[in-house]
Amino acid sequence: MNFNEERERKTAEIEGILKKYLPPEEGYQKKIMEAMEYNLMAGGKRLRPMLMKEVYTMFGGKSDVIEPFMAALEMIHTYSLIHDDLPAMDNDDYRRGRKTTHIVYGEAMGILSGDALLNYAFETAAKAFDMEPESSFIIGKAIQILGRKAGVYGMIGGQVVDIASAGSETEEKVIDFIYRLKTCALIEAAMMIGAVLAGASKEEINKVEAVAGKIGMAFQIQDDVLDVTSTDAVLGKPVHSDEKNEKTTYVTLFGCERAKEEVERLSIDAIRILESLNKQNPYLRCLIEKLIHRER
Amino acid sequence: MNFNEERERKTAEIEGILKKYLPPEEGYQKKIMEAMEYNLMAGGKRLRPMLMKEVYTMFGGKSDVIEPFMAALEMIHTYSLIHDDLPAMDNDDYRRGRKTTHIVYGEAMGILSGDALLNYAFETAAKAFDMEPESSFIIGKAIQILGRKAGVYGMIGGQVVDIASAGSETEEKVIDFIYRLKTCALIEAAMMIGAVLAGASKEEINKVEAVAGKIGMAFQIQDDVLDVTSTDAVLGKPVHSDEKNEKTTYVTLFGCERAKEEVERLSIDAIRILESLNKQNPYLRCLIEKLIHRER
Repeated sequence: MNFNEERERKTAEIEGILKKYLPPEEGYQKKIMEAMEYNLMAGGKRLRPMLMKEVYTMFGGKSDVIEPFMAALEMIHTYSLIHDDLPAMDNDDYRRGRKTTHIVYGEAMGILSGDALLNYAFETAAKAFDMEPESSFIIGKAIQILGRKAGVYGMIGGQVVDIASAGSETEEKVIDFIYRLKTCALIEAAMMIGAVLAGASKEEINKVEAVAGKIGMAFQIQDDVLDVTSTDAVLGKPVHSDEKNEKTTYVTLFGCERAKEEVERLSIDAIRILESLNKQNPYLRCLIEKLIHRER
Repeated sequence: MNFNEERERKTAEIEGILKKYLPPEEGYQKKIMEAMEYNLMAGGKRLRPMLMKEVYTMFGGKSDVIEPFMAALEMIHTYSLIHDDLPAMDNDDYRRGRKTTHIVYGEAMGILSGDALLNYAFETAAKAFDMEPESSFIIGKAIQILGRKAGVYGMIGGQVVDIASAGSETEEKVIDFIYRLKTCALIEAAMMIGAVLAGASKEEINKVEAVAGKIGMAFQIQDDVLDVTSTDAVLGKPVHSDEKNEKTTYVTLFGCERAKEEVERLSIDAIRILESLNKQNPYLRCLIEKLIHRER
């Protein structure tokens, strides 16, 4: 099986897991389950659960205990998109060619279904305690990582600074902070949780965090580059959005050439640290390279 | 020490715990920590953490492991108020005499600081794993309860149905559903988590849940009664708000007399089940009676 076929198969597997962990659409409050499903099953790369699973198997993990965490992390990623799209935030009517939640279900349900997915993420992750009671302490560790990387020291923190900086010139160190928290944190959570649940050592987990940080940073800078160099048709979304929103990015700070070099450097670093772990997962290595050098 | 003095002392203790578990106001994302603190430290009865602690000690609990859960539950209660106050929801400019978050910090920060408190609640609860690694499984159980009672099968679910029912006549069974989820669920979480962390048996936990459900229901019906019978000055907020918002309540369905009788019946039931546990906590018993028969 070649890489693309394997990626499709794995993506379909993840879609199945997400569906399995969604609450059934029943009861008086059924509308909110519909809104949760509308968003969670709207497609996307499924990058975070995929990285989590690949790191988990790389460290020898074999149980289903990883599944609720894969679903939980994608729920957190999804809620953040719902809230980002709200009128008070980016005010977007469409995402991935579909109407956004507040357009379909109204603004109150946009807020509530985001809250519901965030809450349900932790509810879902906590199902792991019943699956493997004897692993309760490391499941607790995984929940700590999920919480920290999604919260004010992770994704939410990055989002707050991003909003505060919009429309004004932003220093490199602030851009770096935003990228580390807003983009890298959930990728770090994905890969670290995979490692933790598979029983990796502290030192190994630190290395995995470093790999993830570099992947996240390269991923985000590549995003900035594509926003300048790609076309609407290839990218599947409007290009030149950063310019339009007067956003400071790595590209506006240093230009496209240096940005491309930085992506290259980060990607080499990530692979080097990954290899220093002496674990085998050729698919993961290939996935990382594809993600970083992607055209869309 | 009389009851009121003791309640004041215990409330001050809880305020101390809440402050201790808030993130320090530092870093580029400091503004969100400020908004979290602005809301969490805005006063209130601290009913949920107080009930949690009292049940915990009633079952012989003695460790600090209860503290992160006390803080976590109050964070969840608080985030729900922030999001309720948003323009797309109840659109309230004031709460407890202070400007609401979106008025002070803007609407985007209103959404994000609610998200931040919800996320930080689980982050805080998960600190318990480091305090008592050997209790990881029951800490996991407590996190499951926290998640379920706050989510689509608890508070959020009730809020969704409440919003959907506003402005139209609502059947008794739907009102019952809304009250059970929107009001009772977090009180159930409070008391059940206290019991679970103190090592109560399954049967005891079920009884505690039943007591909490009756307290929550009586509390909410008393709220409906006071909205009709009290004055702005005594209640500290505008009365007749249910009528103004065309809300179906227990009082509009059955009248004030029957509502008062129901509060009485529920309160007797709650105390009866509590006593069947054969545990001693006279303060808790007194607290329950005061809550149910309160004038404000």
